[in-house]
Amino acid sequence: MQDTQFVLLLWFVGIIAEAMTGALAAGKQRMDLFGVVIVGCATAIGGGTLRDMLLGNYPLIWVENWHYLLAIVLASLLTVVIAPLMRYLAKLFLTIDALGLAVFSVIGAQKTLLLGFSPAVAVVMGVITGVFGGVFRDILCNQMPLIFRKELYGIVAIVTASCYVMLQIAGTEPWLSLGISLWLGFSLRMLAIRFCWSVPTFHYSTDQHHE
Amino acid sequence: MQDTQFVLLLWFVGIIAEAMTGALAAGKQRMDLFGVVIVGCATAIGGGTLRDMLLGNYPLIWVENWHYLLAIVLASLLTVVIAPLMRYLAKLFLTIDALGLAVFSVIGAQKTLLLGFSPAVAVVMGVITGVFGGVFRDILCNQMPLIFRKELYGIVAIVTASCYVMLQIAGTEPWLSLGISLWLGFSLRMLAIRFCWSVPTFHYSTDQHHE
Amino acid sequence: MQDTQFVLLLWFVGIIAEAMTGALAAGKQRMDLFGVVIVGCATAIGGGTLRDMLLGNYPLIWVENWHYLLAIVLASLLTVVIAPLMRYLAKLFLTIDALGLAVFSVIGAQKTLLLGFSPAVAVVMGVITGVFGGVFRDILCNQMPLIFRKELYGIVAIVTASCYVMLQIAGTEPWLSLGISLWLGFSLRMLAIRFCWSVPTFHYSTDQHHE
Repeated sequence: MQDTQFVLLLWFVGIIAEAMTGALAAGKQRMDLFGVVIVGCATAIGGGTLRDMLLGNYPLIWVENWHYLLAIVLASLLTVVIAPLMRYLAKLFLTIDALGLAVFSVIGAQKTLLLGFSPAVAVVMGVITGVFGGVFRDILCNQMPLIFRKELYGIVAIVTASCYVMLQIAGTEPWLSLGISLWLGFSLRMLAIRFCWSVPTFHYSTDQHHE
Repeated sequence: MQDTQFVLLLWFVGIIAEAMTGALAAGKQRMDLFGVVIVGCATAIGGGTLRDMLLGNYPLIWVENWHYLLAIVLASLLTVVIAPLMRYLAKLFLTIDALGLAVFSVIGAQKTLLLGFSPAVAVVMGVITGVFGGVFRDILCNQMPLIFRKELYGIVAIVTASCYVMLQIAGTEPWLSLGISLWLGFSLRMLAIRFCWSVPTFHYSTDQHHE
Repeated sequence: MQDTQFVLLLWFVGIIAEAMTGALAAGKQRMDLFGVVIVGCATAIGGGTLRDMLLGNYPLIWVENWHYLLAIVLASLLTVVIAPLMRYLAKLFLTIDALGLAVFSVIGAQKTLLLGFSPAVAVVMGVITGVFGGVFRDILCNQMPLIFRKELYGIVAIVTASCYVMLQIAGTEPWLSLGISLWLGFSLRMLAIRFCWSVPTFHYSTDQHHE
């Protein structure tokens, strides 16, 4: 029970952090406040919403409990107010975002397992929960999704979700699976940022001269 | 019964108007007729479809009754034929579009309430029904969604849906709630266009020199 | 039974081919390997997934049987390895892609009919299954969807799905409906590529001087 509440708290911190990255991205496109709120919401709950729609798992969390949505709307608007401070908070922000990524990936996998789906599907849904908020943010801002080029973002989601699922299959106690995979995902992301690790890119050109 | 049929008529006018804005947007991107039809359909029924998918409310309206889809396809193709006349009809068109926005927002909220969801969710679904058709249109046309920058579009949806939901909670007769919120939303949008009202925009730059 | 397995084989070839077009498109945008896999998956199963979500038909195929997803991931990664050979295989590739389009359209229509929906909805779902993988691919790559401008792509889906549905209504034996519509769709697409057939485009400009 204790660790469930701890995860819920981390998840809440995660959606708030994601809402703020969404609001900032909207600000870079000079959107109006309505756009800021929509992009904030899509970033914060887009991944989990897509997961539940793919699984046919209704009602959605934020439909059942609209207070989450209210918190996200307020976080988006707050971001507009404190935007000038953002550059001084950049490091804190990256840290919270890394935490959010790890939490989303673990929770996505956990929920899928609890619904009785296979471990492989749980990993896929963990990754979708972790990264698709950012994909929706970038599509709404008419940008190519950053996570397809950014340091290890997607890989962190895969590793975190896989670690959790494997530990659960191995019969590890829930709170231990959770703690280990969260820690692994968070560390990996922070190390990737620190040392600029990245996944090899694939460059395909149909132009004969540039090979 | 009478007012239900009146709303259905307004809704039908709304989806036709939205299909036409979709077709025109496709024409600006020089799409072929297939693209025109797809963008027209996504604009006309995208908002309501997303709402019903988020609520898990199946079957979708246009799946149950494909005649709506046929009407939208025909409206999209008709737009191609009468496009040269469009600039003379621009004012009529904006008026119908404003009506469509108000009707979609009210109907979205109404359906959600009837399905037994909370008032807050009804407002959110009214807004999604009102504006997401336009969001899908702009994503398919590879544009940043206009409604995130255009005069009060999103705000009109919020005000209209909120007004309807509050009147319903207050126990107002259905036809009166409907009439008042439709009139409010329509007037607000027309005034916003007339006087170029807009929501403050949020401009965030990570560049140190431009603050 | 025999023809069901034949269709399943064609479908499998189709998703593999679509995954490879997705991976190549990601490579043109210089995405990392994670992006390549996500775009490959979205291209291969996006159309069928959207169809099943619109119909409320759960669980999704790849959620029930994750081996399809594994095959798609491997095909996407394999594409990166054999990319240098791609230009020599271009013709084979276009052929498989044409086959995939026809198969997807027929299967989409077939599944919808089997679920008890109306013939009109079956045609629409056949088209969605056939073309929306490509739409998702192009949105994730931040491109305007190619199928809205490419030679007859969408029309082939409409003709193929309509042909299948009409033959089924007419009481034709399943394997014959299937064979005829597949052959028709495949031929039409190959002819369209060979002779550069295309659908008229719609060009709408709000600029008064260019009419």
